[in-house]
Amino acid sequence: MSPFRFQVTARAGRARVGLLPTPHGTVETPLFMPVGTQGSVKGLLPRDLKEIGSQVLLANTYHLLLRPGPERVRAFGGLHGFAGWKGPWLTDSGGFQVMSLGHLRRIDERGVVFQSHLNGDLVELTPERSIAVQEALGADLIMAFDECPPYPSPREYLKASLERTLRWLERSLKAKTRPDQGLFGITQGGTDPTLRRLSTLETLRFDLPGYAIGGLAVGESKEEMFPMVELSTALLPEERPRYLMGVGHPEDLVAAMGLGVDLFDCVYPTRTGRFGSALVPEGRLNLKNARHLEEKEPLEEGCDCYACQNFSRGYIAHLVRSGEMLGAILLSLHNLRFLHRLTEGAKAAIREGRYGDFARAFAERRFGREV
Amino acid sequence: MSPFRFQVTARAGRARVGLLPTPHGTVETPLFMPVGTQGSVKGLLPRDLKEIGSQVLLANTYHLLLRPGPERVRAFGGLHGFAGWKGPWLTDSGGFQVMSLGHLRRIDERGVVFQSHLNGDLVELTPERSIAVQEALGADLIMAFDECPPYPSPREYLKASLERTLRWLERSLKAKTRPDQGLFGITQGGTDPTLRRLSTLETLRFDLPGYAIGGLAVGESKEEMFPMVELSTALLPEERPRYLMGVGHPEDLVAAMGLGVDLFDCVYPTRTGRFGSALVPEGRLNLKNARHLEEKEPLEEGCDCYACQNFSRGYIAHLVRSGEMLGAILLSLHNLRFLHRLTEGAKAAIREGRYGDFARAFAERRFGREV
Ligand SMILES: [Zn+2]
Ligand SMILES: [Zn+2]
Repeated sequence: MSPFRFQVTARAGRARVGLLPTPHGTVETPLFMPVGTQGSVKGLLPRDLKEIGSQVLLANTYHLLLRPGPERVRAFGGLHGFAGWKGPWLTDSGGFQVMSLGHLRRIDERGVVFQSHLNGDLVELTPERSIAVQEALGADLIMAFDECPPYPSPREYLKASLERTLRWLERSLKAKTRPDQGLFGITQGGTDPTLRRLSTLETLRFDLPGYAIGGLAVGESKEEMFPMVELSTALLPEERPRYLMGVGHPEDLVAAMGLGVDLFDCVYPTRTGRFGSALVPEGRLNLKNARHLEEKEPLEEGCDCYACQNFSRGYIAHLVRSGEMLGAILLSLHNLRFLHRLTEGAKAAIREGRYGDFARAFAERRFGREV
Repeated sequence: MSPFRFQVTARAGRARVGLLPTPHGTVETPLFMPVGTQGSVKGLLPRDLKEIGSQVLLANTYHLLLRPGPERVRAFGGLHGFAGWKGPWLTDSGGFQVMSLGHLRRIDERGVVFQSHLNGDLVELTPERSIAVQEALGADLIMAFDECPPYPSPREYLKASLERTLRWLERSLKAKTRPDQGLFGITQGGTDPTLRRLSTLETLRFDLPGYAIGGLAVGESKEEMFPMVELSTALLPEERPRYLMGVGHPEDLVAAMGLGVDLFDCVYPTRTGRFGSALVPEGRLNLKNARHLEEKEPLEEGCDCYACQNFSRGYIAHLVRSGEMLGAILLSLHNLRFLHRLTEGAKAAIREGRYGDFARAFAERRFGREV
């Protein structure tokens, strides 16, 4: 298969199963991509990730730009050589994290200048620089440099910003030199349907291997977010993967897969694991709750992950309470496996034309009622 | 083989290879036992420990007594059921850690009263209570309750203390009810040869499945420690395992194995790993040192561990600098594997009657000169 040429292999309503070929392997969608912010999914060995069904890892351009720096990663053969994960990588553009983590000093047509959260250095990031950094990092999938406005933002700002993001997309594409990386455009427009439609249609003037739905999951309600997802996937071409950035709550994955989203990433499963919680079909278990100390059952009955196959809730609750690293590790492992099982279940349901049943069964366990 | 009936299978000088049967498998000595203080070797999955050749894990009675409590561990089937490591466990008596971590409030013939470092509760530990706790924890190898005097201590104190430790050993044995646990006695006597000999000979009046050399590696110099080890192993019976508690520096293992020590434990390999250092034949690499950031070679050329097979020093140095858990995990994994390879190499050398050559070759790399 020619790299980045996405193929839909099954459909159920708007939900779909697809194959996305990359230079480091073909992956099957829908899929959830674990986040390895600094080139490591916190606490997990690459072989553990492979075992639980991870296919693509995400790394953050902002973090790796600051440390260890793109040239050092390049010198080690890019992320594939540096970080021990030999499958596909995806890097974000850095734009989002400049705004959320860096101390933003200036944003204008040229790009952004921010102060490093590590040492206070002033650093400039432009579309050209973002692409250069992402080329040094060498991920299979890279992102156009975009501006992700905070929520809420005034309409005029959203409009000016999405137009700038379009110009930055054009510059990102011009700057790109490596044929072995697929560049995704990112749509913006906040939660304004007209602007979201405008951003999507204008982004579609560029024929790209994939499109990301950006600027969501930044604080708006679910009632505001999902109409934007629905509107987006209705406009986006069938034969391109759609990536909903920063979304990782199981119920959101189920809803978004139903709307035809193919790719997801979020720190949620690993972060909530480090904070002592396990994802289960009914919601979330807080292992800090004293009642779990006596429970002999696994985090989730029937889960095939190493944590559930070998340890009780009681032991993991003890680890969490004792501040033992292994608690965070086992919870992260299970939580990622939970999301991977969710997308695997979704794929099977789509193939069998019963995605609606799948989503209803999920909601019934999750919310305790038929929906 | 009848449980705990140690068999020497090869000898080279005073060094020996032996087999120690336990209810959860027969282990081969000399061996290093990773420390799982709270029932978890920090950051490592039991399957990772198995892969690198760990045979016995140690857990601390003091910690597990305070949290989650012995009855809870018993309710989960003891450490084997609770903590996911199905091979043999060893528990210490709690005595050493009461004195180093607890706020000791009283020590007398009956036992010790200390204040928990977790919540300030007053807790009593006596020989009878230590054995009852260790029976609830269910380790294969358990330790008599002893007093480990600080270094240095006045001779009169050392003498009174070792005599009390002997009375506590007798009480520990009387309190013991489980036939599926082997109880080791612990010799004391500080660095005073006469007292050390006295303690050892008096301890040997009890026919036990193994003997631990206690009260060393508590601050004395190597020049003071090794004569005590030598004196002890000369007195201890050939057909019983000898356990040198708290020793885990590679050069000390090589010297002590040469003197006929069979078992070791220490937090050193995992703790130094969490602090960013790797054990290598030449000594210790501090991965915080900037020069490692550019190094593409593994922690140790030729090491068969997952860390060395998949990652560069440069990547691990990046993880350490970035505060990523994975750095501590990979270093702990390698450091334990380093010690396991060391004892495996020693076993092979003993079988071939060339332990002296082995120790010389080790020292040559370690200290850069022939010794
Ligand atoms: Zn699980
Ligand atoms: Zn290694």
